[in-house]
Amino acid sequence: MTTALETQTPPPRFRRVAIIGLGLIGSSLARLLRQHGFADRLVACDADPAVLAAVRDLELADETEGDAVAGVRDADLVVIATPVSAYAAIARAIGPALAPGAILTDVGSVKEAVIRDVMPSLPAGVHFVPGHPVAGTEHSGPRAGFAEMFRDRWCILTPPAGTDPEAVRRVAAMWEAGGMRVVEMSAEHHDKVLAMTSHLPHLIAYTIVSTATDLEESLQSEVIKFSAGGFRDFTRIAASDPVMWRDVFLNNREAVLDTLQRFTEDLNVLQRAIRRGEGDTLQAFFTRTRAIRRSVIAAKQA
Amino acid sequence: MTTALETQTPPPRFRRVAIIGLGLIGSSLARLLRQHGFADRLVACDADPAVLAAVRDLELADETEGDAVAGVRDADLVVIATPVSAYAAIARAIGPALAPGAILTDVGSVKEAVIRDVMPSLPAGVHFVPGHPVAGTEHSGPRAGFAEMFRDRWCILTPPAGTDPEAVRRVAAMWEAGGMRVVEMSAEHHDKVLAMTSHLPHLIAYTIVSTATDLEESLQSEVIKFSAGGFRDFTRIAASDPVMWRDVFLNNREAVLDTLQRFTEDLNVLQRAIRRGEGDTLQAFFTRTRAIRRSVIAAKQA
Repeated sequence: MTTALETQTPPPRFRRVAIIGLGLIGSSLARLLRQHGFADRLVACDADPAVLAAVRDLELADETEGDAVAGVRDADLVVIATPVSAYAAIARAIGPALAPGAILTDVGSVKEAVIRDVMPSLPAGVHFVPGHPVAGTEHSGPRAGFAEMFRDRWCILTPPAGTDPEAVRRVAAMWEAGGMRVVEMSAEHHDKVLAMTSHLPHLIAYTIVSTATDLEESLQSEVIKFSAGGFRDFTRIAASDPVMWRDVFLNNREAVLDTLQRFTEDLNVLQRAIRRGEGDTLQAFFTRTRAIRRSVIAAKQA
Repeated sequence: MTTALETQTPPPRFRRVAIIGLGLIGSSLARLLRQHGFADRLVACDADPAVLAAVRDLELADETEGDAVAGVRDADLVVIATPVSAYAAIARAIGPALAPGAILTDVGSVKEAVIRDVMPSLPAGVHFVPGHPVAGTEHSGPRAGFAEMFRDRWCILTPPAGTDPEAVRRVAAMWEAGGMRVVEMSAEHHDKVLAMTSHLPHLIAYTIVSTATDLEESLQSEVIKFSAGGFRDFTRIAASDPVMWRDVFLNNREAVLDTLQRFTEDLNVLQRAIRRGEGDTLQAFFTRTRAIRRSVIAAKQA
């Protein structure tokens, strides 16, 4: 269902690259592009003046632009790296300004909704290569970025049928230069896989941290104190960017709710086993999950 | 509700220490005792001959014993470090062999059930100091242990009313020598706090990994491949010892089910917000949890 892309060709040069949204991922990509000298000219576009000030301060771009429309003019590569809910308006705004032959890609964590929101606004001759570098930290903003973030992680591209293979190859080569392994799959399949590997884990982590937040105050401070028993791993995940995650859940609703339904059923089984004191059921359950960890380690993702 | 113990007195020496159960925690404590020379003679007791062979191989003890009753004879410190379900039978067996004045402690993750199971079998003159060093990894067995595991972590002691303060002090001093910060609280309070910080997180992690295990095979291999998006953190937690965790859930049933009930209510709120597309609710929820992470970092538990 997935195809590994093997582009051992040298990474492509771009004349002018515009990155829209210089948060954690956008700024990390800017660092990567500069490190490799992939962009003759790099333009950072962000609606937030404070972000652009930080970009200048960090010397991440040749040019900063509050207006994405001005930023993308004449660019041969445009990367959208904002929260997903902003995509439709951005595409409507920049669509008419995109140069024929330009490649448009993105870094969003959902892909079907992105294609739905962006495609209608693109003029003929612009190549849209939806992408998702599966990397990140719980920190946000341009100062939190770093080029090494992508190393040894996966990047998933979900080009719609008929996308120019050369455009796909150039985007893939850019991520590979950052140390990513690039695969191609359908947007629908991407959203299903990520619902399980990323969206549900975040939803659950947010929930469990919220449950702790609602405890009476005396208990709450002790929960923080004794968080090393497992809770702290959830607090890290639940510290990720609130707007980004709001948009993920709004834009991958069906797959997330379906995965959540499966999770709830499994939780009910465990809950009943605890209530009834069924030790054998619990032990069998916990033994099975241990094997999965070994697979994750074997796949070098631990 | 908790009392910090400040024992800056030199750590105590013991003539003969018997550790029952040389798994991850028991073997780490053996290493700690040897490193500091706290035990004139250290006896490792385990029902599993393979574990005792590993203990001899690693030179973790002066003596190995398949029979705990023989091991505890004449000991002035006995530490139970088996899964909690074995405690009642161990206490019944070793009770008559314990020397008057001996200190008995343990490392179990639940404390009310431990007191219920152990106390009735103890002769007068034996000091029982229930303990829980809140430390560990997802690995098991004597080869996985290491003395540094305890450094900068909390140890909770839950001595029943009337316990000899000098016995509590000596146990506290032993853990402090390993770098632990020791606090005292009631067993009931311990079980409530740990249900939230440790037992619920493990239950949830086991569940989510199980949900992934039930996916059709093609999807399952991709879940492992793309686990860096959040899932892999859960696989680590869900790789912990199955028997230990079976016993935790069987022996802290009420507090775990109560905490799980709160969690399920919170999850229902999120589920409904996703289904209805309520972005504001989601964003507010995710913003609130981010603050908790800062507290965990401030408390130096991250």
